[in-house]
Amino acid sequence: MILARVTGTVVSTQKNPHLAGHRLLVVHPIDLDGKLVSTSFLAVDVVDAGVGDRVLVIDDGGSARIALHDEGAPLRNVVVGVVDDIEVDRGYLA
Amino acid sequence: MILARVTGTVVSTQKNPHLAGHRLLVVHPIDLDGKLVSTSFLAVDVVDAGVGDRVLVIDDGGSARIALHDEGAPLRNVVVGVVDDIEVDRGYLA
Amino acid sequence: MILARVTGTVVSTQKNPHLAGHRLLVVHPIDLDGKLVSTSFLAVDVVDAGVGDRVLVIDDGGSARIALHDEGAPLRNVVVGVVDDIEVDRGYLA
Amino acid sequence: MILARVTGTVVSTQKNPHLAGHRLLVVHPIDLDGKLVSTSFLAVDVVDAGVGDRVLVIDDGGSARIALHDEGAPLRNVVVGVVDDIEVDRGYLA
Amino acid sequence: MILARVTGTVVSTQKNPHLAGHRLLVVHPIDLDGKLVSTSFLAVDVVDAGVGDRVLVIDDGGSARIALHDEGAPLRNVVVGVVDDIEVDRGYLA
Repeated sequence: MILARVTGTVVSTQKNPHLAGHRLLVVHPIDLDGKLVSTSFLAVDVVDAGVGDRVLVIDDGGSARIALHDEGAPLRNVVVGVVDDIEVDRGYLA
Repeated sequence: MILARVTGTVVSTQKNPHLAGHRLLVVHPIDLDGKLVSTSFLAVDVVDAGVGDRVLVIDDGGSARIALHDEGAPLRNVVVGVVDDIEVDRGYLA
Repeated sequence: MILARVTGTVVSTQKNPHLAGHRLLVVHPIDLDGKLVSTSFLAVDVVDAGVGDRVLVIDDGGSARIALHDEGAPLRNVVVGVVDDIEVDRGYLA
Repeated sequence: MILARVTGTVVSTQKNPHLAGHRLLVVHPIDLDGKLVSTSFLAVDVVDAGVGDRVLVIDDGGSARIALHDEGAPLRNVVVGVVDDIEVDRGYLA
Repeated sequence: MILARVTGTVVSTQKNPHLAGHRLLVVHPIDLDGKLVSTSFLAVDVVDAGVGDRVLVIDDGGSARIALHDEGAPLRNVVVGVVDDIEVDRGYLA
């Protein structure tokens, strides 16, 4: 799972019908300190995450279809959790 | 999902028969400001996207077959939406 | 399989129900000498690994569902082993 | 799909039996101008591509098995087309 | 398929039961000249490859389960062939 920050939303009217009715979020991977890393991508929300939330994103087509309860959804990225807290033993990060 | 710009088209006559009859687009990933990032790749179109459009591209074999309604298509990249608008809270990008 | 070090744990209460009841670990890829490489990501534990352990992580949705014995789990990363020892012929690393 | 150039062939006698009888090609990703990018990898040919050809390569296990008509083939990369022409609107590449 | 060199072996006793009884190899991707590139990872062997061998590695969960004849194996990387020879037309690498 990728740790990411929700930074925005995307509007698309001309799209595959299985993607209609789902909120499409802009997510940006972050490190353990919340710093942005890598580049933004887009994910469908299934846990009512909002802009600013620190979230768990799955990058797997099978997982995305399971989470949407729609085997016909052409999709690979889905937000499956909102992070409350991360505890890291910084001795192992030295 | 990857945000990308359609920059061209590809012609291939000698190919797998399941790929015949589909438009094959050149897509280039872009950032939230529309700037090109990473490198071009090729994707089949299912939403009537055109050169210059800002699109949503899926990079997943299962999704590609679903979107084409063809379980026999050897394919991983498909354009599933045209982007109308992106709203980003730039406070989270600082 | 990716060689990684467990460096922490993540708490998420608002998440997909299939992920409830599993320990969610922060793992950081390491090289053969134990040095951190690349960036952290999150994985579910199924072998009772602890913080500080050197582990085997799988990055595959199908594998994650198999290891959790839950075909409805939207997940791609799972810790499937704890490493006891690595023997490398350093002549091939020169 | 990845745009690539076929640069060579590989001989392997000690291998999984499902890979026997297929030509194994060395392919190198190229950009829209034909310049080599990234690094070489290996792919099975199903469209009679030859060394020097500009080809379409799929990087997806399900697609590879479909293209070989062999559900028992442990394989992820397959050449599914030979490129005749690429038309790019260079205004979008600026 | 990835071209790699087998550089070592891994011992793990505390692991998923489906991975027991298989040799776990350390493999390092190499270029066409045998030079190490990228970083090491771990793969299960099914073709009796040894340390020092130049091998074909598959990075696909479905392929790994097929090659092991075990649909319950949480695994993505498997060594499926030993390379005898690579013939490259160096004119295309210039």
